[in-house]
Amino acid sequence: MAKKVLIVFAHQSSGSFNAAAKNAAVEVLTAQGCTVEVSELYAMSFKATATAEDIKGDVKNAENFCYLEESKLAWEQGKLSDDITKEQTKLTEADLIIFQFPMYWFSVPAILKGWIDRVLTNGFAFSKEKRYSQGIFKDKKAMLSFTTGSLESMFSPTGINGDMNVTLWPLQNGILHYCGFQVLAPQIFWAPSSAAAEDRKSMLDSWRTRLQGLLEEKPLSFIPLDCFDEKAFQLKPDVHEKHSSQEFGLTVGIHLNKPLPPHSQMKAGC
Amino acid sequence: MAKKVLIVFAHQSSGSFNAAAKNAAVEVLTAQGCTVEVSELYAMSFKATATAEDIKGDVKNAENFCYLEESKLAWEQGKLSDDITKEQTKLTEADLIIFQFPMYWFSVPAILKGWIDRVLTNGFAFSKEKRYSQGIFKDKKAMLSFTTGSLESMFSPTGINGDMNVTLWPLQNGILHYCGFQVLAPQIFWAPSSAAAEDRKSMLDSWRTRLQGLLEEKPLSFIPLDCFDEKAFQLKPDVHEKHSSQEFGLTVGIHLNKPLPPHSQMKAGC
Repeated sequence: MAKKVLIVFAHQSSGSFNAAAKNAAVEVLTAQGCTVEVSELYAMSFKATATAEDIKGDVKNAENFCYLEESKLAWEQGKLSDDITKEQTKLTEADLIIFQFPMYWFSVPAILKGWIDRVLTNGFAFSKEKRYSQGIFKDKKAMLSFTTGSLESMFSPTGINGDMNVTLWPLQNGILHYCGFQVLAPQIFWAPSSAAAEDRKSMLDSWRTRLQGLLEEKPLSFIPLDCFDEKAFQLKPDVHEKHSSQEFGLTVGIHLNKPLPPHSQMKAGC
Repeated sequence: MAKKVLIVFAHQSSGSFNAAAKNAAVEVLTAQGCTVEVSELYAMSFKATATAEDIKGDVKNAENFCYLEESKLAWEQGKLSDDITKEQTKLTEADLIIFQFPMYWFSVPAILKGWIDRVLTNGFAFSKEKRYSQGIFKDKKAMLSFTTGSLESMFSPTGINGDMNVTLWPLQNGILHYCGFQVLAPQIFWAPSSAAAEDRKSMLDSWRTRLQGLLEEKPLSFIPLDCFDEKAFQLKPDVHEKHSSQEFGLTVGIHLNKPLPPHSQMKAGC
């Protein structure tokens, strides 16, 4: 079956390396028979800030406005603003989401954080019962594809920025896996702005090569939700005792040096 | 000498727990003789998105716009937009910056990420030579003060969200320490929205108590810049061999359970 892909693209310029990476994805995936949609956040002047204006009509508690609750209610009642609803529809239809962005301050640019804050609404993207391995989007895949300013060596476990796996943990575990997405290994373009033209070209060439097999890639591993107790969400003692060499939510091999484990130290084998 | 404090406040509502935490800080610090300024980002309708409009007049390369470079140039030439310049002046004058926010998706809300992306301009807040322990703001202190939706147990090293220290690493090391700030331990209000009224009150009371000694607190430790080589920014081999029990950039003790170390595994004693 032909797959649908949504690329959420967050760079200001169509002449940028990020735009070239996005264009490569559109081209290679379309050639494989995928339908590719792109949300160009800057071109759309996408609203980044979570406010009461995201809700049509009156909010429930204007005095003590809580975005998490009000947006949940608005989603249930079909009262979310049209720009949010449009993105949610694209997301619902997609089998794979690629976030393409330049890393700003060890994370996504604010405009992309705004997409995350506003589109991944409570109820639509997660609930208390449906998160992590039981998450709402567990039949979908998602991945980060981004450029850095820093060299790769700076993001190794003994590099000055610390391990890239740690920097990505809040994004890959806290956002993508939290919503249930099967998280594909990140595509990291190391410091293209300080690279020679031929190196930039070879980065794009290897991205093109990866794109051809992207949909068949095995996602990163995370500890399943039922390995945690239901009250404090602590790893169950019997799971703790089992041994495993599995490394959770981490990229190993070609993309990064030896990873430093957030969850991998647990030796869980659930 | 009386200290100046800047609170960057990112909640939509003046009736929120975050507003109460911000008000407590204003009150206690003012009573101690500090001058406290508050940037209320939502009330200011602070622009979150980094665009060419942040630069007065023509940009250098409109075809291939690069925010990092263009904003650096604009800062050098005094061409940054007035809203950015105003925040930079507040920051320059402050001895301590407190970021007060509800955690959205394991990080700061987009409006606050926008403040970080736009105000911490290349050249103003960091340069290739001046970062980390040699950073521009090394005589200033900064800290995160935030509410969570999750329970504390979920953010322990064996909790489902992983160690809170890992989640905070990109913010505390990648933003605050990167600019040179002495980083004070985070103030974490665990799930106040699901807490009883008396528990919410006692959270605020202990924040008030902490605020009284805040300016005398010892900041978190980070590995000094000169422990890394100047080319690949890798930890120097001789440093690697030394032993130390120090845990870098991590909170220990009352705020969090046993931390999982990004840099602490290095056994550096530089």
